[in-house]
Amino acid sequence: MAECKCGQKAVYLRRYEGNAYCSQCLKEQVEKRFLAEAKLIGKDDVVAVALSGGKDSSVLLHLMSKFCRRNKIRMFAVTVDEGVSGYRDRSMECAEKMCRSLGIDFYTTSFSSEFGVVIDEIRGKSCTYCGVFRRYLLNKKARELGATKLAIGHNMDDEAQSAFMNFLRGDVGRMARPGNSRFVQRIKPLAGIPEKEIVVYANVEGVEYYDGECPHSFDNVRRDVQAILNDLEDKYPGTKLQIANFQKKIIPIHGAGINRCSICEEPSSGKICKACELLENLGKLAGSELIKAS
Amino acid sequence: MAECKCGQKAVYLRRYEGNAYCSQCLKEQVEKRFLAEAKLIGKDDVVAVALSGGKDSSVLLHLMSKFCRRNKIRMFAVTVDEGVSGYRDRSMECAEKMCRSLGIDFYTTSFSSEFGVVIDEIRGKSCTYCGVFRRYLLNKKARELGATKLAIGHNMDDEAQSAFMNFLRGDVGRMARPGNSRFVQRIKPLAGIPEKEIVVYANVEGVEYYDGECPHSFDNVRRDVQAILNDLEDKYPGTKLQIANFQKKIIPIHGAGINRCSICEEPSSGKICKACELLENLGKLAGSELIKAS
Repeated sequence: MAECKCGQKAVYLRRYEGNAYCSQCLKEQVEKRFLAEAKLIGKDDVVAVALSGGKDSSVLLHLMSKFCRRNKIRMFAVTVDEGVSGYRDRSMECAEKMCRSLGIDFYTTSFSSEFGVVIDEIRGKSCTYCGVFRRYLLNKKARELGATKLAIGHNMDDEAQSAFMNFLRGDVGRMARPGNSRFVQRIKPLAGIPEKEIVVYANVEGVEYYDGECPHSFDNVRRDVQAILNDLEDKYPGTKLQIANFQKKIIPIHGAGINRCSICEEPSSGKICKACELLENLGKLAGSELIKAS
Repeated sequence: MAECKCGQKAVYLRRYEGNAYCSQCLKEQVEKRFLAEAKLIGKDDVVAVALSGGKDSSVLLHLMSKFCRRNKIRMFAVTVDEGVSGYRDRSMECAEKMCRSLGIDFYTTSFSSEFGVVIDEIRGKSCTYCGVFRRYLLNKKARELGATKLAIGHNMDDEAQSAFMNFLRGDVGRMARPGNSRFVQRIKPLAGIPEKEIVVYANVEGVEYYDGECPHSFDNVRRDVQAILNDLEDKYPGTKLQIANFQKKIIPIHGAGINRCSICEEPSSGKICKACELLENLGKLAGSELIKAS
């Protein structure tokens, strides 16, 4: 590999730019991109970091912890236990350990306590249930704990995949979704950073994380999309960046309004929110905390 | 294959709907979708049909000819000769023959007379040059001949490919481009019809067309995109339809303004239009009709 501009041995080539970076310069690049997004956070904000214990959210916690300490901003971490034994329990240990060593408050919430169901019990389409329920609980917990920003560890590859999936479905509404006061504002400080750079950064900074893969991750569309994007990126470097940026540049012709779910009163695009709809599918709505809360 | 709803033997399965059609019912489906778009044409319009002599534009001419005769609307056909010997000359024969048999005025224009260059002479990226120059001349010729609508034979597959290519490039501006008075309004009456249905329709209706492939069609991105979309459509029927519809649902956050090219005065998003820029690259700008016209 070529040398870094600074003269050091390069460890990473950012193909779409043609620049090679040594570990120190790549670290600076990652931190610069994090800061470009983190500048949305103000002095009076309280930041909740969605922490799974995997590489992206652990790197996010590491960066956010430095940022908040420097700027005297309150922050804490939230983990959602979806109920995937042998996987989430292990990643939560990592998450808790990391919070302890950084002196960050660590909160948890779970599908079992809130919905009376665990992902291990759900047959078929478990990724759909998991995604909807997790987003729902992260928002709820962050709001209850007084957060004004909810930081999510999506990297550039995740953003490109989501944009591509929404594009394939023709789902403009989901691509450009308006805000709502009951949604804690979501920020994605890693959205401009490719997955590979997150991995290198974690290595350079010695960020420990849980590296397991969820045994339920059978989402075929996402896997297909991932493979297609990796191929395209290989042939046409910069594709992921362009796709990830696409959704920032559009607004839907007909904006999707956001209401309150008539069952649980959480934000919803329809009369009933997706979480209540899926719980109803599972026959778990009546026993859940959602009904009790309303 | 299953039976058509009408009881006849089905010849075509529209997978994304799950419906099978006999040739008569498929013909009606195609005509219905054509009419849904053609209703944009009013009594006072003059329609120019961009006719290459290939399957899509020949089917378009066939449908438009019936439509305009029934509604007493003026129409004519325009072919652009890009200068691809053994290909465009043959397709133009088909185009002319079809116009003669339908009693439709047939006009031609060419890269050689307007730009002093033929595609056979251009090395590399010839698809880029060809596309830009052809769109330029179709618009110019249609306007000069008094057309108020320019009908293009893009089918649903073409639309999905273009949308996908713009998406991969993050090019929102091209996906949702505003109109301009020097652009004859482009309409795409086949945009809701899958390529396969066009082929079946041509067969059912006995539309003759030239079936050759351009010897210069090396556009790698389009080929990759075509292959990806065919695979996705196969696995997830309806993908092409959803993608093709995507661009109808968005507007760019920053609308791209349209100016006049400072050289030829045709519509342009920049100071100089793409056609003049490409002619300049080829060293052909000074000798072209574009300079003489200004």
